[in-house]
Amino acid sequence: MIVTMTGKRGRPTAEEREERHQRVLGVISRVIVEEGYGALSFDRVAGEARVAKRTLYSDFECRAGMLRAAVRRQHAYLDAAPGSAEDVLAAAIAVATSLLREEAVAFQRAVISAAPLHPQMATEFYASGPRAAQLFLAERMPHETAGEREDAAETLLSLMFGEYYRRRLIGITPAPTPEEIRMRAERAVRLALDGQPVASGRRQLVDAG
Amino acid sequence: MIVTMTGKRGRPTAEEREERHQRVLGVISRVIVEEGYGALSFDRVAGEARVAKRTLYSDFECRAGMLRAAVRRQHAYLDAAPGSAEDVLAAAIAVATSLLREEAVAFQRAVISAAPLHPQMATEFYASGPRAAQLFLAERMPHETAGEREDAAETLLSLMFGEYYRRRLIGITPAPTPEEIRMRAERAVRLALDGQPVASGRRQLVDAG
Repeated sequence: MIVTMTGKRGRPTAEEREERHQRVLGVISRVIVEEGYGALSFDRVAGEARVAKRTLYSDFECRAGMLRAAVRRQHAYLDAAPGSAEDVLAAAIAVATSLLREEAVAFQRAVISAAPLHPQMATEFYASGPRAAQLFLAERMPHETAGEREDAAETLLSLMFGEYYRRRLIGITPAPTPEEIRMRAERAVRLALDGQPVASGRRQLVDAG
Repeated sequence: MIVTMTGKRGRPTAEEREERHQRVLGVISRVIVEEGYGALSFDRVAGEARVAKRTLYSDFECRAGMLRAAVRRQHAYLDAAPGSAEDVLAAAIAVATSLLREEAVAFQRAVISAAPLHPQMATEFYASGPRAAQLFLAERMPHETAGEREDAAETLLSLMFGEYYRRRLIGITPAPTPEEIRMRAERAVRLALDGQPVASGRRQLVDAG
């Protein structure tokens, strides 16, 4: 008996393709987090996600492509950016919400573990993950030059994550609540933009929301 | 034939004990970095460092004790603190110099990898490492209350390490030169103390050195 995903022979619908794609991304992430990048292979993902290997080759081309797609999914805000080009705080909250989730922290942990053996993987991860987040924030910074905007975005990320993120990586601090994320983001935006170490807003921009 | 460390029967000298202790700490660090905390055991360390197990039990009591001693060695500045209680910059440089070294980054990487399986180890690591560094810096902060001093120290660490440390952990940035460490520390101290995102000193304190 032949059973296809569509229940009949023929090309899957767009919805079926999307469902399959999300299932594949879930398998990729799980293999990386639970067993490490070294365990990731087309054979493994094809088997666990119940898709044809040629479909995977067509979607991802290579193992690094699977990694990039899994990282990209963690940074979904990159696609669903809010309209205002000036809302640094909203962008900071979006980034922190994505990257402080347990799944994203576990993924970062797996990348750190595998990095010494897979330096190219680490480079791909950085470009499609943290560096993309930095550029996303930099675009929304008020500074004049691109260099200043990137510096400010790096400062903002360091303040939002920093030592707190170290505690998340070694698992001694639980995932933050949305309220905690907002507070971290507000404090970091204030200091990065205005240079105010203590939480007492000087800008309307930051006080909004 | 019986061969003792001293070449004759009797208690080892203080110098011999110190040499042995450093050799043991080197073995502990290497096992953790190369094979993970799960591979660390008294049998393993006794064999590789050529010391009696009862000596190890006497020195470290338990496996966590071996970890603490290895972490503590990375933070040697805690013992050799400079005299001035106000020299935040010198303290920041000492912390950054210790923790950005390749050995310390590799150690942190190993702790992150092992943390999900060994949560108690992660807690011990944090207390004897990063948290000790934070308190060391907090003692030198000019703020009035202990809470403010600890907050300022956490901000300083986040700015000095932050996203840069993420790049160190995934191995895409080489170990910094002493000059790069000084620049990172100066910039972080300025922003943490004075709230100046750009490098233009306002305080004598920071400009000194």
